[in-house]
Amino acid sequence: MSDNSFGRLFRVTTWGESHGPALGCVIDGAPPRVPLTEADIQDWMDKRKPGTSRFVTQRQEPDTVKILSGTFEGLTTGTPIMLMIENVDQRSKDYSDIKDKFRPGHADFTYWSKYGIRDYRGGGRSSARETASRVAAGAVARQVLKTLIGPQVQLRGALVQIGEKTIDGSIWNWDSVTQNPFWCPDPKMALEWEDYLDGIRKAGSSVGAVVELRASGIPAGLGEPIYGKLDAELAAAMMSINAVKGVEIGAGFASAALSGEQNADEMKLNNGAPEFTSNQAGGILGGISTGQEIVVRFAVKPTSSILNPRTTVDRFGAETQIMTKGRHDPCVGIRAVPVGEAMLALVLADHLLRHRGQVGGFKSGFDPR
Amino acid sequence: MSDNSFGRLFRVTTWGESHGPALGCVIDGAPPRVPLTEADIQDWMDKRKPGTSRFVTQRQEPDTVKILSGTFEGLTTGTPIMLMIENVDQRSKDYSDIKDKFRPGHADFTYWSKYGIRDYRGGGRSSARETASRVAAGAVARQVLKTLIGPQVQLRGALVQIGEKTIDGSIWNWDSVTQNPFWCPDPKMALEWEDYLDGIRKAGSSVGAVVELRASGIPAGLGEPIYGKLDAELAAAMMSINAVKGVEIGAGFASAALSGEQNADEMKLNNGAPEFTSNQAGGILGGISTGQEIVVRFAVKPTSSILNPRTTVDRFGAETQIMTKGRHDPCVGIRAVPVGEAMLALVLADHLLRHRGQVGGFKSGFDPR
Amino acid sequence: MSDNSFGRLFRVTTWGESHGPALGCVIDGAPPRVPLTEADIQDWMDKRKPGTSRFVTQRQEPDTVKILSGTFEGLTTGTPIMLMIENVDQRSKDYSDIKDKFRPGHADFTYWSKYGIRDYRGGGRSSARETASRVAAGAVARQVLKTLIGPQVQLRGALVQIGEKTIDGSIWNWDSVTQNPFWCPDPKMALEWEDYLDGIRKAGSSVGAVVELRASGIPAGLGEPIYGKLDAELAAAMMSINAVKGVEIGAGFASAALSGEQNADEMKLNNGAPEFTSNQAGGILGGISTGQEIVVRFAVKPTSSILNPRTTVDRFGAETQIMTKGRHDPCVGIRAVPVGEAMLALVLADHLLRHRGQVGGFKSGFDPR
Amino acid sequence: MSDNSFGRLFRVTTWGESHGPALGCVIDGAPPRVPLTEADIQDWMDKRKPGTSRFVTQRQEPDTVKILSGTFEGLTTGTPIMLMIENVDQRSKDYSDIKDKFRPGHADFTYWSKYGIRDYRGGGRSSARETASRVAAGAVARQVLKTLIGPQVQLRGALVQIGEKTIDGSIWNWDSVTQNPFWCPDPKMALEWEDYLDGIRKAGSSVGAVVELRASGIPAGLGEPIYGKLDAELAAAMMSINAVKGVEIGAGFASAALSGEQNADEMKLNNGAPEFTSNQAGGILGGISTGQEIVVRFAVKPTSSILNPRTTVDRFGAETQIMTKGRHDPCVGIRAVPVGEAMLALVLADHLLRHRGQVGGFKSGFDPR
Repeated sequence: MSDNSFGRLFRVTTWGESHGPALGCVIDGAPPRVPLTEADIQDWMDKRKPGTSRFVTQRQEPDTVKILSGTFEGLTTGTPIMLMIENVDQRSKDYSDIKDKFRPGHADFTYWSKYGIRDYRGGGRSSARETASRVAAGAVARQVLKTLIGPQVQLRGALVQIGEKTIDGSIWNWDSVTQNPFWCPDPKMALEWEDYLDGIRKAGSSVGAVVELRASGIPAGLGEPIYGKLDAELAAAMMSINAVKGVEIGAGFASAALSGEQNADEMKLNNGAPEFTSNQAGGILGGISTGQEIVVRFAVKPTSSILNPRTTVDRFGAETQIMTKGRHDPCVGIRAVPVGEAMLALVLADHLLRHRGQVGGFKSGFDPR
Repeated sequence: MSDNSFGRLFRVTTWGESHGPALGCVIDGAPPRVPLTEADIQDWMDKRKPGTSRFVTQRQEPDTVKILSGTFEGLTTGTPIMLMIENVDQRSKDYSDIKDKFRPGHADFTYWSKYGIRDYRGGGRSSARETASRVAAGAVARQVLKTLIGPQVQLRGALVQIGEKTIDGSIWNWDSVTQNPFWCPDPKMALEWEDYLDGIRKAGSSVGAVVELRASGIPAGLGEPIYGKLDAELAAAMMSINAVKGVEIGAGFASAALSGEQNADEMKLNNGAPEFTSNQAGGILGGISTGQEIVVRFAVKPTSSILNPRTTVDRFGAETQIMTKGRHDPCVGIRAVPVGEAMLALVLADHLLRHRGQVGGFKSGFDPR
Repeated sequence: MSDNSFGRLFRVTTWGESHGPALGCVIDGAPPRVPLTEADIQDWMDKRKPGTSRFVTQRQEPDTVKILSGTFEGLTTGTPIMLMIENVDQRSKDYSDIKDKFRPGHADFTYWSKYGIRDYRGGGRSSARETASRVAAGAVARQVLKTLIGPQVQLRGALVQIGEKTIDGSIWNWDSVTQNPFWCPDPKMALEWEDYLDGIRKAGSSVGAVVELRASGIPAGLGEPIYGKLDAELAAAMMSINAVKGVEIGAGFASAALSGEQNADEMKLNNGAPEFTSNQAGGILGGISTGQEIVVRFAVKPTSSILNPRTTVDRFGAETQIMTKGRHDPCVGIRAVPVGEAMLALVLADHLLRHRGQVGGFKSGFDPR
Repeated sequence: MSDNSFGRLFRVTTWGESHGPALGCVIDGAPPRVPLTEADIQDWMDKRKPGTSRFVTQRQEPDTVKILSGTFEGLTTGTPIMLMIENVDQRSKDYSDIKDKFRPGHADFTYWSKYGIRDYRGGGRSSARETASRVAAGAVARQVLKTLIGPQVQLRGALVQIGEKTIDGSIWNWDSVTQNPFWCPDPKMALEWEDYLDGIRKAGSSVGAVVELRASGIPAGLGEPIYGKLDAELAAAMMSINAVKGVEIGAGFASAALSGEQNADEMKLNNGAPEFTSNQAGGILGGISTGQEIVVRFAVKPTSSILNPRTTVDRFGAETQIMTKGRHDPCVGIRAVPVGEAMLALVLADHLLRHRGQVGGFKSGFDPR
């Protein structure tokens, strides 16, 4: 099982290589009668689009999404939704350097070890270009969540760390996120990052980052214990994004250093409804959503495509040197923000349908005594 | 889909509640002709067993595993393997306190929100008692790995942090791990933890921890891109363990602060074979194993069962207080070590079979030029 | 993937061999709050129980079902339901004859070819003993259907052919079905079968049969096109029963000889509701239930365990003879009736949950113009 | 789970509607390094193509397949293979008649009942147009079987019954199959069918058919008991084809009338290898292939699209009449032959990979004594 599918009931299968004619995804299991047009998807594609600032890859792709099946008169029909994005900027290029050499930190060596063949052009299937399909599918998932739960559902992401520079979380400003090229919620840090990343870019180097995602308006009860826990599947979803090396929920790794008193979120009543006084849990307990904001963070490693030569081997068994030529991406973490949001949407839409399948609805309120 | 199964080809389905008559798992897809006896499993069960030191839960369970199907004359037959563990220490107890109240930091509220019913005795299905089944299944997975790959496969785990006290990784000593009640690879830190945890235990409090797992002897090529990446499934596996809030691979979250030069592991030749000069990747690139040691870490939150009263609500909509009575577990992270190892074994056995299904074997060596 | 599981959302995994200590199944995905006790299951087990007449196997098994997990105070909790049946009548027996020889018409040769090992005692995993687990799971599925749809759901089966002797369908009498040892809806034919089968039994021979199943009270809309069609999964379900060689829906193979006019069921109105004037479709169109009675038939081959010697080979490559000794089963089709009913229940319960997951409910009535 | 995917390891997901811009499929799990070009697929597409004789639908479609991903330099790479077929002959047509009326014997009513919306143009997703994707995927499966097993693998199909006219199986001639427009292996019957079907066509009526498929060169050992049996999955595969109402393996329904002596295929030695003296089993025992020829038959109902008016209801709750206008298809069973072959290829390729995943290879020959 070569798993290019994600989700159980809202199931997305992506296909396509970096330098093939097109790429896209098939979504199987979307509920019928959900409003969906190409414009609903395109907005989110534009957010992820390459070439929008000097801090991200300069590949020029319009990333225009076409819906080839699964909708009728502006509504989903319950049949598979096929989304296709044609590749435009597969610039004719000299691949002789990477054809036989394994770039350090890339999947070149592992794809070759696994399959005994690889489409080396632009990284082939292992390229982050695949994430365009995720964002397209994520847009459909958002429509599903909005239709089935309501407009209060909000899925958002931000960059909270670049290299060693971390935002001041206490001044988090969602408005700021769309006002700088980094999805940074701390306007002061955004300015600092600009200088910092310029330096890295000019040095031909790269740096890692941390992304934080939040989902609000999600009802309590989503998640399928034991192995389909909401946090387990969020972890898989985020770790499946190119270059991601760590995932945490709520207090995450910091919870290791907390006491039980500090960590357990107490509950009280608010106008008769249960409410938590804190959210160390990141909105998930026992693998099931609590109704609080869901908080996920993931770490993105620095891209290995840097302008300095590196030692490696080739597939004939010779030691050699390799360096990236031309355009490079100083911080791939930036473009991971909309991809993370998309994965969050996919996980939640899938769990919403799974919950509805087994349980049928959400229990609300308290039992009469 | 209420997902109580893990794995695709080596598929484990666990069942059972904390205070039911028994619990266990069915393993579907184990290869035939793998040596397997109850003793092969029992050794690993004993490692996880509760009540072995004052730092872990005092529940007394022999955790004796019975094989009810799937083997014949000491070998697996390719049919489902049913493993059963009877519950012995379901001590008759007064549950009136937790019957209707939601314990902060537990799954009480979310199970109730999701299912509208819950077996509150000892946490029911959400209890860490379920991990006994994982360890049993993990022992079978180890037999599979050993039989199919060879004796060089080694899966080990250790505790590297308790509360704010982190080991000195530079003096890592595997022998030390089995010589203290914490699976600590740093003998000096083990002594320090003893005092530290005694204090926490006596205060009726609890504290979190970080576990590190390593797998060596694993060939390059395991892992199924894009959504069945080895690291993605390791992340899900670890996050599915009770109380886990974060997972990382190799350099993990620290990679966010690295430069591309620091992070990308260079390759050279060693006696004609490819070799990496470092392992920031933690043995996985593009979601596929590199042949290096696989390194996974996960964070365990402090248990919420503490002796101090906490504010909460009950299922009738009243604010109330709750406290844990009697025995408690100052650091649940300790017992997570063998569970983490078991999950590592399950992921690897499953990926070994998946790789064999699609590709059939491993590519070795270089191409002749 | 050695598939011992059935269903996607209501997922049953069976385990156990004919002569192991026990067998049973785990049901994952049952909705919570469904009434379920051991007695609810036992009634159906008794119906399938061996040794009830001289026309079925004389193995003596009480087939007592224990629920080991997944219920609390008489209700399902949404967690896995483990059902166990202990094997009692594994009579100590001389297996030397079948240990190395492949019985013609049995799975001996194919299990050996596939796995290179087999538990030859009583057929091991390939024994029809496994169907006890199906009947137990089917009883749970019936509870789910009754709870979620209502008491009008009725799943019934009958034997409509033994050897060349076919019932007169025009005098179908459901009351008759429980009044003879064959589940025969034609009381005259039941008498005829008695003599006929006695002759076959005394001759040490065996004969095939055809089972017909009907489900009424099932709403329109169940079934998941394209590859999860209701009829496709019914076909798989029935064909997975031991000794089944053919499955048909509605008019089935006879539809090949019909004209389009004869075959297409016209629709009219009945008190404002849509109604079909015939049911050649067997209640399924385009893989989705129409709301009519669902009609499935399947053919069961004669058992190959007969008292006459047959030519075969052994696993060392020698030609040899083999014959069944002692008790034998003249028509295994009889005991397939409750098994077929159980599979029907499993398919319908699974599709009910799948439908609810994707669509959420059933569309009823007509649109206002 | 709206299941538009088929297979577990060799997994095909089809998408597209009859009158959408295109349709196709994604194949996930194809082994790497299998030779595959568009020409390999196109040959099989041409065989299924509509408009090739007056006995099949007159829709004009070139059915040109494009490979959009998953191959590199003429070989598969192990990544998803996307195959796309553009719809050309979606002739602008007046759909007012079928827009609101439910055609008897079609999926119109059930899609509307299930989803509350349907793309009525040409049947939308429920159209047999979807089978073009199956044939394309089947061609890839053939390449996989040929590469992994060898050139001896042969998958063929024929039409053995139209209406009440059945071929004489004793003069079966594979050469004849490609020499008449019916895939008929009995040249005399082919002539008879020509007159017979002309009569039906001119009368504006239609008639059913039976297809027989055979696979030779398949090793013993394929099939996954208990619920993934080879015959169970063949049954599901065939029943999932539009208009199919029955499936049988080997002797099939006829086995009900056989004695155990007649039905059980004896074994002997042939040059030291095991050989069966008959094949009532159709090449499958216990759900696993025996190494003999695999024999599957399925019944196709007459299409409901006939030129005579039929009574039905519309979606507003009125009784009405409906008739098919223009071109119609007197026997849809003819075009089901290549579709059945494709499904056979898909099932076998999937089971080959599944077997390889769990078991690793095939056991051959006998054990030394």
